[in-house]
Amino acid sequence: MNNYRKLEGLIAAPFTPMNPDGSLRLSAVEPYADLLAGSGVRGVFICGTTGESASLTVSERQAVAEAWVAAARGRLKVIVHVGSNCAADAICLARHAGQCGADAIGAMAPYFFKPQSAAELVAWFTPIANSCPLPFYYYNMPSMSGVSVPVAEFLALGGKAMPTLAGVKFTHNNLMEMSQCLMLDGGRYEVLHGYDEILLCGLSLGATAAVGSTYNYAAPVYNRLIEEFRAGNIAAAAELQRYSVRIVEVIVRHGGGVRGGKAIMRLMGVDCGSCRLPLAPFTDEEYALLKRELEAIDFFDRVR
Amino acid sequence: MNNYRKLEGLIAAPFTPMNPDGSLRLSAVEPYADLLAGSGVRGVFICGTTGESASLTVSERQAVAEAWVAAARGRLKVIVHVGSNCAADAICLARHAGQCGADAIGAMAPYFFKPQSAAELVAWFTPIANSCPLPFYYYNMPSMSGVSVPVAEFLALGGKAMPTLAGVKFTHNNLMEMSQCLMLDGGRYEVLHGYDEILLCGLSLGATAAVGSTYNYAAPVYNRLIEEFRAGNIAAAAELQRYSVRIVEVIVRHGGGVRGGKAIMRLMGVDCGSCRLPLAPFTDEEYALLKRELEAIDFFDRVR
Amino acid sequence: MNNYRKLEGLIAAPFTPMNPDGSLRLSAVEPYADLLAGSGVRGVFICGTTGESASLTVSERQAVAEAWVAAARGRLKVIVHVGSNCAADAICLARHAGQCGADAIGAMAPYFFKPQSAAELVAWFTPIANSCPLPFYYYNMPSMSGVSVPVAEFLALGGKAMPTLAGVKFTHNNLMEMSQCLMLDGGRYEVLHGYDEILLCGLSLGATAAVGSTYNYAAPVYNRLIEEFRAGNIAAAAELQRYSVRIVEVIVRHGGGVRGGKAIMRLMGVDCGSCRLPLAPFTDEEYALLKRELEAIDFFDRVR
Amino acid sequence: MNNYRKLEGLIAAPFTPMNPDGSLRLSAVEPYADLLAGSGVRGVFICGTTGESASLTVSERQAVAEAWVAAARGRLKVIVHVGSNCAADAICLARHAGQCGADAIGAMAPYFFKPQSAAELVAWFTPIANSCPLPFYYYNMPSMSGVSVPVAEFLALGGKAMPTLAGVKFTHNNLMEMSQCLMLDGGRYEVLHGYDEILLCGLSLGATAAVGSTYNYAAPVYNRLIEEFRAGNIAAAAELQRYSVRIVEVIVRHGGGVRGGKAIMRLMGVDCGSCRLPLAPFTDEEYALLKRELEAIDFFDRVR
Repeated sequence: MNNYRKLEGLIAAPFTPMNPDGSLRLSAVEPYADLLAGSGVRGVFICGTTGESASLTVSERQAVAEAWVAAARGRLKVIVHVGSNCAADAICLARHAGQCGADAIGAMAPYFFKPQSAAELVAWFTPIANSCPLPFYYYNMPSMSGVSVPVAEFLALGGKAMPTLAGVKFTHNNLMEMSQCLMLDGGRYEVLHGYDEILLCGLSLGATAAVGSTYNYAAPVYNRLIEEFRAGNIAAAAELQRYSVRIVEVIVRHGGGVRGGKAIMRLMGVDCGSCRLPLAPFTDEEYALLKRELEAIDFFDRVR
Repeated sequence: MNNYRKLEGLIAAPFTPMNPDGSLRLSAVEPYADLLAGSGVRGVFICGTTGESASLTVSERQAVAEAWVAAARGRLKVIVHVGSNCAADAICLARHAGQCGADAIGAMAPYFFKPQSAAELVAWFTPIANSCPLPFYYYNMPSMSGVSVPVAEFLALGGKAMPTLAGVKFTHNNLMEMSQCLMLDGGRYEVLHGYDEILLCGLSLGATAAVGSTYNYAAPVYNRLIEEFRAGNIAAAAELQRYSVRIVEVIVRHGGGVRGGKAIMRLMGVDCGSCRLPLAPFTDEEYALLKRELEAIDFFDRVR
Repeated sequence: MNNYRKLEGLIAAPFTPMNPDGSLRLSAVEPYADLLAGSGVRGVFICGTTGESASLTVSERQAVAEAWVAAARGRLKVIVHVGSNCAADAICLARHAGQCGADAIGAMAPYFFKPQSAAELVAWFTPIANSCPLPFYYYNMPSMSGVSVPVAEFLALGGKAMPTLAGVKFTHNNLMEMSQCLMLDGGRYEVLHGYDEILLCGLSLGATAAVGSTYNYAAPVYNRLIEEFRAGNIAAAAELQRYSVRIVEVIVRHGGGVRGGKAIMRLMGVDCGSCRLPLAPFTDEEYALLKRELEAIDFFDRVR
Repeated sequence: MNNYRKLEGLIAAPFTPMNPDGSLRLSAVEPYADLLAGSGVRGVFICGTTGESASLTVSERQAVAEAWVAAARGRLKVIVHVGSNCAADAICLARHAGQCGADAIGAMAPYFFKPQSAAELVAWFTPIANSCPLPFYYYNMPSMSGVSVPVAEFLALGGKAMPTLAGVKFTHNNLMEMSQCLMLDGGRYEVLHGYDEILLCGLSLGATAAVGSTYNYAAPVYNRLIEEFRAGNIAAAAELQRYSVRIVEVIVRHGGGVRGGKAIMRLMGVDCGSCRLPLAPFTDEEYALLKRELEAIDFFDRVR
């Protein structure tokens, strides 16, 4: 990890493109990467929540990782989510990520049998992180995983057991805890902000990189927000954040950031298809409604 | 399903035997089946929660299923849990169960993206159940899955979409809902009682079969309970139930029914090893302590 | 407490009668007591959840207690719920209950600042229970209070600090815990079953008394259930329990046991009015609908 | 409300001073108000969570309100929390606040019977708010009340029914929702930030006033934070926020902001005593430990 550079700026959490029959549509990855690179995104966190990793087989996850590494071509850092309830599968995915040219790996906690303490979580992740030389990010997301372990304590303990532990993708509303992670050990660990709709809060507290699903289609809005923040124009940044809230209100009406967001990609010119079950398919009528709702907030002009 | 006979009596939810290095120890399945058949158990519900299905790869789950079918030899009905967050994996497992000689399949709800309604749950299960001719049981367990769909409504809707829908493994404390399931459509659906420590409640309400992890090692206690119940000796049955509570108190002190229960199997002569992570390994000291605690409640005499 | 006799059979949890303007309608208590005594109810647990104690002032609660003591005339035991988030108010109510002729008191845990352990709960209740010579019942209801303290541990600890501790009103789905309470110290503590729709489960496990809101208007159904249970006719008892489920399904459609149940009282001839806010008022249209739904399950004939 | 000025800056949520026997110690209110006014606090939100309103009788709450109005002498705005599960008590307290010279009222949602929608919450608050001419703030705190109603929807509906509805004390981690409230109707409603440890986030999103318990003893830290924020020195503000996190870490180790914070007041020279049950009393040993922990983070120098 000596030469590993910290992540900076916006990291998109890509949707996994699928054909109408539900199979992978890997041909969409190349134009998808073009879109992201062109919109100021700096990296991709693939096969996470937004990428429907839980709905993919292990071999599909490997195929998606290879497609992104090929399409990134140095324009985008590629972080591969390797989390699984099955440690053997997670290790298999971590090794594959290390071999296929990815830049880093991440993993959420197991969410069937749930670790109850930082020590248990470190015990879980150690063989996974140590199976691959890439930097490792813990993907903290209690709302989905049901695992609520004190993150700063996890990082402090984990740093001793996992030399590659680089930081945390922090997808949780507890921003005091985010501050604790940022403070830890003189800022040793990266804290990737994980809630797009409050990015400004994360920046204020000191985060410098962010992973999210709306960066797939609205990165220019957020990059302007970051610029205004850096220029000290907080009121202008807050105004852009409020616009991001308007976008999120639309996707929430369409099933949330995964289902509603994936549908937006077709409207952006990169058809990713519908989600797999248990997320319901998107109909043509709903696409039309979604488009009208986005037009009503001037979406297609503002995300350029 | 024409000739399928309803499940009756005790169905054990077997632990998956593992070697000290964590690999499968399939050689233990044959003596395990002997133990169960000899103790009055009528069937096995394999690779469920107790069987650590979430910690197994797909191919390991298939290997376990084959081992149990081979060992059962008609002495035990074999129900294979095929649930997964990934529909493709669940379908693969269901087909395999149909081909390898199992008697029925079961599946819990997906627990990453969570169905929010009975209709969504039916949509999820339909392609899985319909991929195999075996009877299908919905494994309802909100405490682990986080999916709380009205079960009677699910059965009513699901019976139309899935001709093989046989019933529900009901692992939930809401016994009014269990009554509703038993009442539905003139008793069309089987309701497999799922909490061993309150089996008497399920029997009282009308359940006639039960799936659980303590039936692996304490079936004789429960079979006596069932006999007393059938003879109208409820007070005697309640006394046996209270003894089962004593057993459960011991396993709760050792991490619960999966971790603590699995350790008991070694003390019963069928070494199933430790659980996989994230459940912590069992040490020799803890085995010794567990043994003393069980002796203190006269366990080894009473479960004969 | 020397001569205190354990509670037996059905204890109704009365609704607090109110006028159309929301004020107390204490004149209804006398005919209400007549109805209950005539239907085989053995006692009343007043000003609990069903009695809307949280919506009453302290002086109103005292007035309701006095009215029930006056109306009971030895026909019904009167247990007064004195729980409050304010210990001073609870002590005031407990002393008043002791002075006005009640038979026992009960109290739920404080539910704003929530005790986190059995020891904290004992510390909370001790000054309240000890302020009055009457038997004291802990009203355990985690679904409403958010307080989940191990009840058997509470009883074991509490029995040392509170000489009047008589037992627990157990309104929780964890029936293993109910068994633990029944087993404790040779059956020293009374366990008042608290979920009407699964009364048969409680009886099976050994409970001999029950407190509930549907006993206000359907006691004859439950008394027949108890008779069948005692006669060893469990299947007949289960059939009656299923009928009770049908009743509960109706009240759930009308806002639950407090709001929907209170409306039934008018249809039974004892008008208790609507609930106070935040429970919504009952309109004439809804009364008519409720009546039709009850008639559809033959309610008025079966509860005689 | 014509001449009512919006709240600005720091509003302390005072502890209710108590004698060693638990009775009110109203003589402490005058020096308490001096301390607050001298430390740059602009107002007080009394008898809320921190003020242990749930543990006080109605008449005690009135006495506390009168003491604060008398001590404030125009130096501090006085907002009186009048929330209660009993609407009659809340109305009584609201009227009293209006008559005794308070500046505004606030109320949390009822938390025994819980409103399920914005409409139900508006129905609940309307008679309370309309019983008094003072501005009314909804105290939104789902973590304690268990009431999670969409706040912006509540404000939009509530503004029509309650002419005095001034805004919301927003004590919740959902900062997207806070943005929605700030955006509503052109910024018509005040949003009082309610989590001290992330004040900088609230400021960034546009909040201009904040209510909290640590402002009782650490207001100078937060006022410097606000100054740095206004000067565009976000990194310096973040550093001060991190110091506030250090303070909160100490009080969390001593039972949280109410119990641990109240103990700090004695160390600041305004002895407020211990909390009432169910919060455990503070011993001399714990005071000494608390003092050492605060000294270890240089607390007494930094809060001057």
